[in-house]
Amino acid sequence: MAARVDFDRLRGFIALAFAAVGMRERDAEAIAQLMAEADLQGSDGHGSIRLAPYLKRIRAGGVNLNPEIRVVRERSGMALIHGDNGMGHLVMKRAAELAIAKARDAGVAWVGAQWSNHAGPASLYARMALENGMIGLYFAVGNANHLPPWGGLEMLLSTNPVAVAVPAGDEPPIVLDMATTVAAYGKVKAKAAKGESMPEGWMIDREGKPLTDPKRASEGFLLPIGGYKGYGLALVVGLLAGTLNGAAMGKDVIDFNADTASATNTGQAILAIDPAAFGDLHEFKQSVDRLVRDLRASERMPGVERIWMPGEQSHERRIAYARDGIPLAPAVWTALDGVAKDLEIPRLERLK
Amino acid sequence: MAARVDFDRLRGFIALAFAAVGMRERDAEAIAQLMAEADLQGSDGHGSIRLAPYLKRIRAGGVNLNPEIRVVRERSGMALIHGDNGMGHLVMKRAAELAIAKARDAGVAWVGAQWSNHAGPASLYARMALENGMIGLYFAVGNANHLPPWGGLEMLLSTNPVAVAVPAGDEPPIVLDMATTVAAYGKVKAKAAKGESMPEGWMIDREGKPLTDPKRASEGFLLPIGGYKGYGLALVVGLLAGTLNGAAMGKDVIDFNADTASATNTGQAILAIDPAAFGDLHEFKQSVDRLVRDLRASERMPGVERIWMPGEQSHERRIAYARDGIPLAPAVWTALDGVAKDLEIPRLERLK
Repeated sequence: MAARVDFDRLRGFIALAFAAVGMRERDAEAIAQLMAEADLQGSDGHGSIRLAPYLKRIRAGGVNLNPEIRVVRERSGMALIHGDNGMGHLVMKRAAELAIAKARDAGVAWVGAQWSNHAGPASLYARMALENGMIGLYFAVGNANHLPPWGGLEMLLSTNPVAVAVPAGDEPPIVLDMATTVAAYGKVKAKAAKGESMPEGWMIDREGKPLTDPKRASEGFLLPIGGYKGYGLALVVGLLAGTLNGAAMGKDVIDFNADTASATNTGQAILAIDPAAFGDLHEFKQSVDRLVRDLRASERMPGVERIWMPGEQSHERRIAYARDGIPLAPAVWTALDGVAKDLEIPRLERLK
Repeated sequence: MAARVDFDRLRGFIALAFAAVGMRERDAEAIAQLMAEADLQGSDGHGSIRLAPYLKRIRAGGVNLNPEIRVVRERSGMALIHGDNGMGHLVMKRAAELAIAKARDAGVAWVGAQWSNHAGPASLYARMALENGMIGLYFAVGNANHLPPWGGLEMLLSTNPVAVAVPAGDEPPIVLDMATTVAAYGKVKAKAAKGESMPEGWMIDREGKPLTDPKRASEGFLLPIGGYKGYGLALVVGLLAGTLNGAAMGKDVIDFNADTASATNTGQAILAIDPAAFGDLHEFKQSVDRLVRDLRASERMPGVERIWMPGEQSHERRIAYARDGIPLAPAVWTALDGVAKDLEIPRLERLK
């Protein structure tokens, strides 16, 4: 059973941890908010489970604790941000805020980042547009290469994710957040832990044959979605989020699990689109609602209980976990207790 | 054997056909250029094979022969174009030119279109950015719904394609052009014609089971790439290209094969990104070249002769077909001869 924690308490604990290693209080709070939000929406692979690795990286000198994040290029419809090797959350929060502010005038604005770092779930930054009645798109270069080019054996590409957030009216927003591989590595590890085999289509071995034994995962590769199409998507997302920003892509991508001391020069990008520039915002939101309802009410396959919109399950988790607390896996509790001991800060307490 | 035709001759023939039904000469030439280019790059499902259906639609009053395409909304980073129900090629050529011109100042610019029509291969418009040293992205709502929402049985979504074109230096540009389904309907028809079965993963039947007999295609649905991920992609592409522009999406999409008389209100969008706003253009192109070469030179799976970049095969076809002529299938020759007879214009002649 996963014991639960209150959102505010989790956020407070994470902020305390970053402050304890010397981060500016405002920055520590901003990162803590985003990491706790990741857990709140069920993106638990990108939430507080990352606290210990982030701290390890900070201690190893791989991340700049107090960066001077700055705009190095700017036009009316774009900006390029230098993250000064700060935590990716700080860099991409700044990027999203700038994209939204610029889109308010320009209608549409793109902000790229260089010398950033891992920033957690892609959807968090795309979602920042929503509160402003805007559409957000997010592109990132992943922090370890897991994918060979189509037909290849060398892992030169990452699972480069894309997120798109579209505001609705009375319906929850549509929030797509996806890697360009069929399965994430986390899912493979979960299968291994349960002693189950993987379905065909998740991985292939070095001969290109289906690999279904998750214990043999290191002998093969993740498969991109739609075969060569997903390879193409991973590549162009990397060009837009990495190469365009002068950030790492391909051979230059550092495996941030294996190397905690080198700057990753992670590249990400955010695009904000203001529907109010295209027409009436209220009408746009009503059109989205209508579409959602048409899709949801449409005839289902036998055995399918509900047709979900992208992001709808995360939305429901946000509501439920805010009310009932966020369930954290036992291993995460242990890791967070370890952090508390290490930094001599109060332990995170379970909800009674 | 597919007899071949010279690019200029094919373009001239198509222009003559549109002029013969009363289109302005400049518009007829612009569409002919794009349709012949589709054949030139091997996008033969979107080239001259479409001439007869386009003419049928024009005669049925489904397309406005001489539209007044106009900008209805504009900011520094965006514009919304009203296509006045003109041919999609004209609307999206105008949209791409405007996006490129605006990106020259704004760095990045997005132009959406409403009341447009089928415009041929997505890549043609993304590619327009290349000559200007820019990156182009294109999104479109398809002109017939082939895809149910994930878990559903009602075809409420189209195969909404995405194209991304990225300029390189000495290497061919990277041009991704993909539908969000695993296979296109054309591939299913080709399997049926050859009496072959389809691989699992292309289609499912109404119970969700694999459908491999292409003759039973009408009993099932195309599968989106990566399962629910491709469904999400098709949906968000439709929101960006359709709903945002006040164009058709979901239930409002007209099947342009079944209905030739109604205006489709097709929505498309183009995004132009000027790498020169982010840094030095030459350096950017060199980085793309380096990445392409790293990928191409990387270790291959047994039996794989070459690692291809997205768009590289189309690029090679463009060169070969410009030199040797464009092969057109016998059925296309017959259809074009039929058009010539109908319109009393000279027949298209085969290359000797």
